[in-house]
Amino acid sequence: MTDVTRELAQFVAVSRWEDVPAAVRREGRRAVLNWLGCALGGCRDATMEPLLAALGAFAGPPQATAIGRGERYDALTAACVNGVASNILDFDDTHMRTVIHPTVPVASALLALAEWRPMDGRRFLHAFVLGVDVECRVGNALSPGLFDAGWHPTSVCGGIGAAAACSRALGLDAGRTAWALGLAATQACGLSEVFGTMGKSFNIGHAARSGLAAAMLAAAGFTASARGIESPRGLAGVFGDPARAHEALAGLGAEWELAGVGYKPYPCGIVTHPVIDACLDLRQAHGLQAGRIARVELAVDPVTLGVCGRDPADGLAGKLSLSHCAAAALLDGEVGVPQFSDARVAAGDAAALRARVAATADAALGKGQARVRVVLDDGACHDMAVEHARGTPRRPLTDAELERKFQGLAALAGLDPSAIGRTLADCRALDELPDAGALARTGIPPNS
Amino acid sequence: MTDVTRELAQFVAVSRWEDVPAAVRREGRRAVLNWLGCALGGCRDATMEPLLAALGAFAGPPQATAIGRGERYDALTAACVNGVASNILDFDDTHMRTVIHPTVPVASALLALAEWRPMDGRRFLHAFVLGVDVECRVGNALSPGLFDAGWHPTSVCGGIGAAAACSRALGLDAGRTAWALGLAATQACGLSEVFGTMGKSFNIGHAARSGLAAAMLAAAGFTASARGIESPRGLAGVFGDPARAHEALAGLGAEWELAGVGYKPYPCGIVTHPVIDACLDLRQAHGLQAGRIARVELAVDPVTLGVCGRDPADGLAGKLSLSHCAAAALLDGEVGVPQFSDARVAAGDAAALRARVAATADAALGKGQARVRVVLDDGACHDMAVEHARGTPRRPLTDAELERKFQGLAALAGLDPSAIGRTLADCRALDELPDAGALARTGIPPNS
Repeated sequence: MTDVTRELAQFVAVSRWEDVPAAVRREGRRAVLNWLGCALGGCRDATMEPLLAALGAFAGPPQATAIGRGERYDALTAACVNGVASNILDFDDTHMRTVIHPTVPVASALLALAEWRPMDGRRFLHAFVLGVDVECRVGNALSPGLFDAGWHPTSVCGGIGAAAACSRALGLDAGRTAWALGLAATQACGLSEVFGTMGKSFNIGHAARSGLAAAMLAAAGFTASARGIESPRGLAGVFGDPARAHEALAGLGAEWELAGVGYKPYPCGIVTHPVIDACLDLRQAHGLQAGRIARVELAVDPVTLGVCGRDPADGLAGKLSLSHCAAAALLDGEVGVPQFSDARVAAGDAAALRARVAATADAALGKGQARVRVVLDDGACHDMAVEHARGTPRRPLTDAELERKFQGLAALAGLDPSAIGRTLADCRALDELPDAGALARTGIPPNS
Repeated sequence: MTDVTRELAQFVAVSRWEDVPAAVRREGRRAVLNWLGCALGGCRDATMEPLLAALGAFAGPPQATAIGRGERYDALTAACVNGVASNILDFDDTHMRTVIHPTVPVASALLALAEWRPMDGRRFLHAFVLGVDVECRVGNALSPGLFDAGWHPTSVCGGIGAAAACSRALGLDAGRTAWALGLAATQACGLSEVFGTMGKSFNIGHAARSGLAAAMLAAAGFTASARGIESPRGLAGVFGDPARAHEALAGLGAEWELAGVGYKPYPCGIVTHPVIDACLDLRQAHGLQAGRIARVELAVDPVTLGVCGRDPADGLAGKLSLSHCAAAALLDGEVGVPQFSDARVAAGDAAALRARVAATADAALGKGQARVRVVLDDGACHDMAVEHARGTPRRPLTDAELERKFQGLAALAGLDPSAIGRTLADCRALDELPDAGALARTGIPPNS
């Protein structure tokens, strides 16, 4: 049995900033910018009200900020709250190999910790990069079975990444970091059955909280197994195949999982994106008018069809509905936050077009792929196949595109252009900031 | 697909006190007494210091009490703290069919809620009985695969039971109770890899916290799937077999799972108990002297051997070590809290006798069964087989035995005889108490 937990813990504990390649540092800055935009964009979502009503009653000292809102909570509660806010729009990043959305749990936990236990931007970014690496490496060892079995991969692996990042930021040694990973492993959870409800984003906020709690417990000397990941009764054995646990170590320190992360151009489930790409491109290429569309035929991989094959009841469910994503793209010619309001999902034109969309499974397609055929009322057919969706590492968003995405999301939270400009500058120079925690107070007046 | 989640939620929401048989009420009172003793006995365990050091920094308003200690925390934190304290001695109760220790997660969550949102003893006991029933019913549908796969069944199912109990106590309707069950299901977790470390009891404290959080979120309108248990992507599908989910409903309302619950006479893993029974009985029957024992041969079921086959490094690990349990019983003639101190595990006589214990697996044995052979230095052999361990429902502890167990544990927490007497009286008349939450302040001076 390979010492996967101990080797990951050792890597996290002894990594030097000089060991992190410039391209990885850059991707780390891009990931944090994208995440901060998602947190701002989601911070006033309807999901936040019952969440804060329920958890606020139990919150402790004002250690950390609800991003974009300004309420202050204990760091564990803030990690959960910001995790939900930054995932709720379904606009965050994706590690394509595992379909993990890596930044939300790691950054939500780490930034809450950074407000409570101040750290500079370099310490923050270094811990962040390590946390995402461990999170996605563990995901590699569990994929693709994890998602296919019904687990929510970001939830299962997110707490591990958050624990790794927070352990590093706290300066834990390898032994305590291994305990933290074990305590995160034993809290790992998250069912995809709650997709399409508020429960989906709660999964990820809960993972952020669990990972920070794991690191704090280990720091205090609370013991766990040092084989939490690789053991037959540990994460790999229970969620996957312990014989594959060693895959988490492949290329450790030489290859960085952030290199396989993309940023979503559409605020909805990543597996719907190839369909949206195709529908937008077909609409533009052929000047399609929705009223003339007789039917739309989608082919996707079987697991995507299982998760996203339902007609949606509301906006949240629309984010994981292939038929709604296709209909919105063909009707509106764009797929942004407004396309997933409850009202847009309920609208007659959307419902009518959704009823003319049929999706089938094709086991030859990968999760990032799709074929779309639009059949018009005169019998004309238009086809498009997508191999790699926009925003994935093979078709990455440029820095300018990412900054425009941030600007749009920050505007949703009511930030003025000068605040937006300052935050963009802070994220561009993240590893030079004297106080990383200040990012959590983006757009919030100093005395509020 | 049977509506398992909805049917359980409906049962919890509409159950009447008159529907709960007298025998079930009695067993509920016994379970709460046994649990309260365990919480008192464990409240000063070394595990509590790092737990409180880590979590105390984040705790919110003083809504609920750390039993036996007196610190006050928000109800979620108190649920976790009391869950750890009442499990750490490994002295709590057991639902034999599932090897779930049902009371710790349910009572820890519910009593914390009862301090914050006062309720009388009848409301408390009714909610408790329902919570244990749902917890063990879900366990029935997942057993025995759950434990065999490496999961910690009490942790996985405990949050569900806590959510059910708290939903009932809060007066949630069936719809919101179903959300609470779904939110508990998506937080279900707990690896047996952390057995033998502090992480084991944390699993159960975490389940108590998760279940209370699930009920509070649902009460606030936070949505989840209403098929969290039976769906292929829900608890049954991901942790077990969705085709068996309906087994959770067998005899609902007519049979009560509390009838299958026993109370431990020894503070260690329940699966070690048949071995301890046999060793104690052999020692007494034959006047065995440890110095004359050449070897001890144990036969247990294969899963028990996998979990408990290791030589222990410390007291916590000793609680899940067949060789230590056998050696302690044969050496000391009793198996109580002192037999699982770090010092007793490290003592030379215990280590020497452990080295002469050999355990083998026998697939014909059930988890509650064992065979023990003691071979003396003159070649004489003494054998004993145990079908049902002491304290299990087939050989139940009497009320007097349970009260003596409570007295011993309460004395560990420093309670004087008058406080012990008052608490025994309160538990005997639990369903007539005006304020159930007062149980949490057992032994604590009113003004502290």
